Amino acid sequence: MKSLAILGGTGKEGAGLAMRWALHGYRVIIGSRSAEKAETRAKEMNGELGADYLSGLANAAAADRADIVILSVPYNAHQATLASVREQCQGKILVDLTVPLQPPAITQVNLPGGGAAALEAQSLLGPDVTVVAAFQNVSAVKLKKLGQPVDCDVLVCADDREARTAVIELVAAAGMRGLDAGLLKNAVAAESLTPVLLHINKTYGVQGAGLRITGLDDGR
Amino acid sequence: MKSLAILGGTGKEGAGLAMRWALHGYRVIIGSRSAEKAETRAKEMNGELGADYLSGLANAAAADRADIVILSVPYNAHQATLASVREQCQGKILVDLTVPLQPPAITQVNLPGGGAAALEAQSLLGPDVTVVAAFQNVSAVKLKKLGQPVDCDVLVCADDREARTAVIELVAAAGMRGLDAGLLKNAVAAESLTPVLLHINKTYGVQGAGLRITGLDDGR
Repeated sequence: MKSLAILGGTGKEGAGLAMRWALHGYRVIIGSRSAEKAETRAKEMNGELGADYLSGLANAAAADRADIVILSVPYNAHQATLASVREQCQGKILVDLTVPLQPPAITQVNLPGGGAAALEAQSLLGPDVTVVAAFQNVSAVKLKKLGQPVDCDVLVCADDREARTAVIELVAAAGMRGLDAGLLKNAVAAESLTPVLLHINKTYGVQGAGLRITGLDDGR
Repeated sequence: MKSLAILGGTGKEGAGLAMRWALHGYRVIIGSRSAEKAETRAKEMNGELGADYLSGLANAAAADRADIVILSVPYNAHQATLASVREQCQGKILVDLTVPLQPPAITQVNLPGGGAAALEAQSLLGPDVTVVAAFQNVSAVKLKKLGQPVDCDVLVCADDREARTAVIELVAAAGMRGLDAGLLKNAVAAESLTPVLLHINKTYGVQGAGLRITGLDDGR
């Protein structure tokens, strides 16, 4: 089974995915700026899961030991975190979950200078890292309810088709449906949908609005 | 009942909406660059509907007689069409359906210079026109099946909340669920989701992929 490093895995979104993947048999390493914080959170999650599934390391060490690196940090830590793991990611897939929100205006689309956070990641990491954008629209609240399926599809964007397929498998392992959403530049759609979902949460008084792609079973 | 002008109403998307609204009791005027083409299409649609519901006029005359103006043209005609109806739209709501596609790469997100086609429309029309972005993700194929509900939500973005509410009513009248999706700048999300849906159509061999927002009934 492949090993996964979740940089920013101490946060809510990353933690939910980490536990779901650990339960599915992946070797999961929680990464954080602080190795101590990563170890502490990994222990807490192991306690929740009732077994020593997860370990914790500083981000660069976590990325170094993983086959696939997952990035789950706030946008204001995006660039610095990527710079700190650039070497350790070479030749690997990096799955970028980042939504370029600009707090406190988190219900408004913010287009970053590079068009999409995932495109900025590709540019920072260089051509030998395969950046895949995914999971931006999934509610952390729902991810943490481990026994329950998440009523949200995951749009998976990457320039490399095999990398899309590999990440669609990871999505399924976490209990969701992943869909091939095309080239990495299409990450703009998923990244900009998140502030819309946060607006909908606020406007309609709900906690975890998500999306489903319809029409996939028509005429088949 | 309010009167609606559908500029570009001779196209597939506009025609489907026109007939749905006409059946719902709105006075609908088809607009086109050519008055003759607009009249011909209006007659054809009246034939389909079995009654003289629709009329056809040149775009500027259509906009002039309408309470609400709907813009349904390809992106390469967006700017010129808006310029041709600028005067006639003052003080009104303009609903922009435009997706900034760059053929032939219609399965790839293309961010226009102004960030979103709807933001460009607002800038072209000036502050006395209330631009509302909506309907970008709805399959024309499904809209034309008049008796059938469309399995797609409509994200409605505008800086003015009352205008959002007015357009959400128009969405319901056309047989769909409209959702308040926030400020006009959030139109980026809906506009960039369309090439993703077109990619999904191609990849999964379907014709009318759409979206549903989930989680709206949780905990209520």
